[in-house]
Amino acid sequence: MTRAAFPVGTAAASAAYLLENLTKILAVDRSKEIVESVTILTSAKKLFVYGVGRSGLAARAFAMRMVQLGIDCYFIGETITPVVNDGDAVLIVSNTGSTMSAIQVANIARRVGAKVISVTGHPASKLAHASNVVLLIQSNGDAIQSRLAPLNTLFEDATVLLLDGVVAQVMEKLGQTEADMRGRHAIMV
Amino acid sequence: MTRAAFPVGTAAASAAYLLENLTKILAVDRSKEIVESVTILTSAKKLFVYGVGRSGLAARAFAMRMVQLGIDCYFIGETITPVVNDGDAVLIVSNTGSTMSAIQVANIARRVGAKVISVTGHPASKLAHASNVVLLIQSNGDAIQSRLAPLNTLFEDATVLLLDGVVAQVMEKLGQTEADMRGRHAIMV
Amino acid sequence: MTRAAFPVGTAAASAAYLLENLTKILAVDRSKEIVESVTILTSAKKLFVYGVGRSGLAARAFAMRMVQLGIDCYFIGETITPVVNDGDAVLIVSNTGSTMSAIQVANIARRVGAKVISVTGHPASKLAHASNVVLLIQSNGDAIQSRLAPLNTLFEDATVLLLDGVVAQVMEKLGQTEADMRGRHAIMV
Amino acid sequence: MTRAAFPVGTAAASAAYLLENLTKILAVDRSKEIVESVTILTSAKKLFVYGVGRSGLAARAFAMRMVQLGIDCYFIGETITPVVNDGDAVLIVSNTGSTMSAIQVANIARRVGAKVISVTGHPASKLAHASNVVLLIQSNGDAIQSRLAPLNTLFEDATVLLLDGVVAQVMEKLGQTEADMRGRHAIMV
Repeated sequence: MTRAAFPVGTAAASAAYLLENLTKILAVDRSKEIVESVTILTSAKKLFVYGVGRSGLAARAFAMRMVQLGIDCYFIGETITPVVNDGDAVLIVSNTGSTMSAIQVANIARRVGAKVISVTGHPASKLAHASNVVLLIQSNGDAIQSRLAPLNTLFEDATVLLLDGVVAQVMEKLGQTEADMRGRHAIMV
Repeated sequence: MTRAAFPVGTAAASAAYLLENLTKILAVDRSKEIVESVTILTSAKKLFVYGVGRSGLAARAFAMRMVQLGIDCYFIGETITPVVNDGDAVLIVSNTGSTMSAIQVANIARRVGAKVISVTGHPASKLAHASNVVLLIQSNGDAIQSRLAPLNTLFEDATVLLLDGVVAQVMEKLGQTEADMRGRHAIMV
Repeated sequence: MTRAAFPVGTAAASAAYLLENLTKILAVDRSKEIVESVTILTSAKKLFVYGVGRSGLAARAFAMRMVQLGIDCYFIGETITPVVNDGDAVLIVSNTGSTMSAIQVANIARRVGAKVISVTGHPASKLAHASNVVLLIQSNGDAIQSRLAPLNTLFEDATVLLLDGVVAQVMEKLGQTEADMRGRHAIMV
Repeated sequence: MTRAAFPVGTAAASAAYLLENLTKILAVDRSKEIVESVTILTSAKKLFVYGVGRSGLAARAFAMRMVQLGIDCYFIGETITPVVNDGDAVLIVSNTGSTMSAIQVANIARRVGAKVISVTGHPASKLAHASNVVLLIQSNGDAIQSRLAPLNTLFEDATVLLLDGVVAQVMEKLGQTEADMRGRHAIMV
């Protein structure tokens, strides 16, 4: 892909910028952490996901796929979330790793004996310290980024793609097909 | 980017597959439709967004940025959504373009005189027919896709990136900076 | 209770009006329908609840208690809702019984062999017709109501109290204590 | 109302118990605090509401009515919540008054110059201390309560009715009719 091939306009320039940087971010080798994450995700009694703002939306998109893969999965803060127990796992998305509720969820989870996977941009954050596995996504800002991918856009979009990759690996490990997933698709009205 | 450069494992293969196909999808020239969309988005009295499932999450991610850009924007179905009126605009995300509630939202919006922008995979769908502007995202499935990007993953992820591009173009048109957006960032607890 | 005993002001007059009318509404004998509902709720493989607007909030309040009682319960439309199957049950709240998505949920549920309980104000509605059990809440409007309990306030508040009564009966049937429920209380951050 | 008049069964006994206790709770004179709250609610530039769990549902039910009364109102934590500023107001529901995020919202609001109204069961709580006005709802538990109105049921249901009373008083103060409110009713699909 070259940016020259892209259509004109700021929207197209932004899409090209995102793709270029997402490619760099996702080319980082996280295979060890992903194998560990997939082991935790597929052996947990219950899986919980959490995140605030756009990070929370990326977490929800992942949770929907986990449900379609037959995993008992909940989003913390929604109506019907049960309590986290020993043997469960929690996946938390937070770029800074310092959102207060994210740290609190991680600490409560660890205290009861649940495993914590975090997707974060800061390996030295309180969230990273409270995690069993850290999926690190570092997206350094520059002048162009503030115009073409403002705020945490790169982190959030990289999280969506990274976790969609994790979905594929969980799918493979559980021997699930797309048809199996479609069969568990929720009513959409 | 070459897929050979990517780390091993199904997750990495999926990320590479997504990036390769997202690049193809986003290289399609939609500059005319994006200009029309940005005009509607920036001149509407109120902006509403809607979508179901993972499409709804992509729509929400867009809505959060619109609020940060100072646009009066609501997600239909959440607690505090006001009524849609003449002079407003609605952006609806639906791959099939046949989700019943999405069509109903579009029809109600048109009836009261609001403009409709749709992000859809089907140009002949009822949703596309009810729209003033269609942002078309076509993602044909093959055998690999069902394993590396199951169900509507490509459509959904392309929508996230396409709409993040629209954010950049709205930002430019309104003369907004990243600092302006940060200043309107919601309380995150 | 006499309204004379109440403090002055429109808020107090409204509270008194609500209590007076809720007492009338809840004194109607629904014991047969409640026994049938509790049998369905406690024997379903999975329980789903649904409602739109303030009716949806009443439905969510009920769903939270079902989860605390150990019932596998979901709110349709939230992130992690699985598919409805044979042997499941759906509880739907809609005053008019004609909200399109509510009828659609009921019809899909019946088609797959799930039982439907509705809380509605209209026994001849499409929703009521699609239901195995109807919990009827009729709240006739008058001139005072439009001032002290506007729109569907009485229906919605009566639904909250009626379903809290159903919670107590489910609790008794399952031999659950308040301490059991507290032990299943979700993380609140 | 006498409980003897009620139909048999635990659900009916629970409804009767709720009505009896809600009547006691709502007969407490809060006219001064309600007048102060209504002044704040109707003079705020923007209104925010917040609460977690079933308290959050009661807060959402109130927010929906505020929107229908033409007040610019948001639920903190939903997709499109803007930032809280000087001149705004926040209404927070928390029985204990010690939920961490509720206290944090109150503190942030006060810091920027926004007014805080709390609905709480604990006048000495951190939340109450951070509030400009406290609407106190005290619901002492006994052995019957744990069986007929487990956990915070009485507090939550009293909050719904108390705030519906506040809706009526705001409606009166703003000279709004039920028809005005219906005209601002959101699309329900």
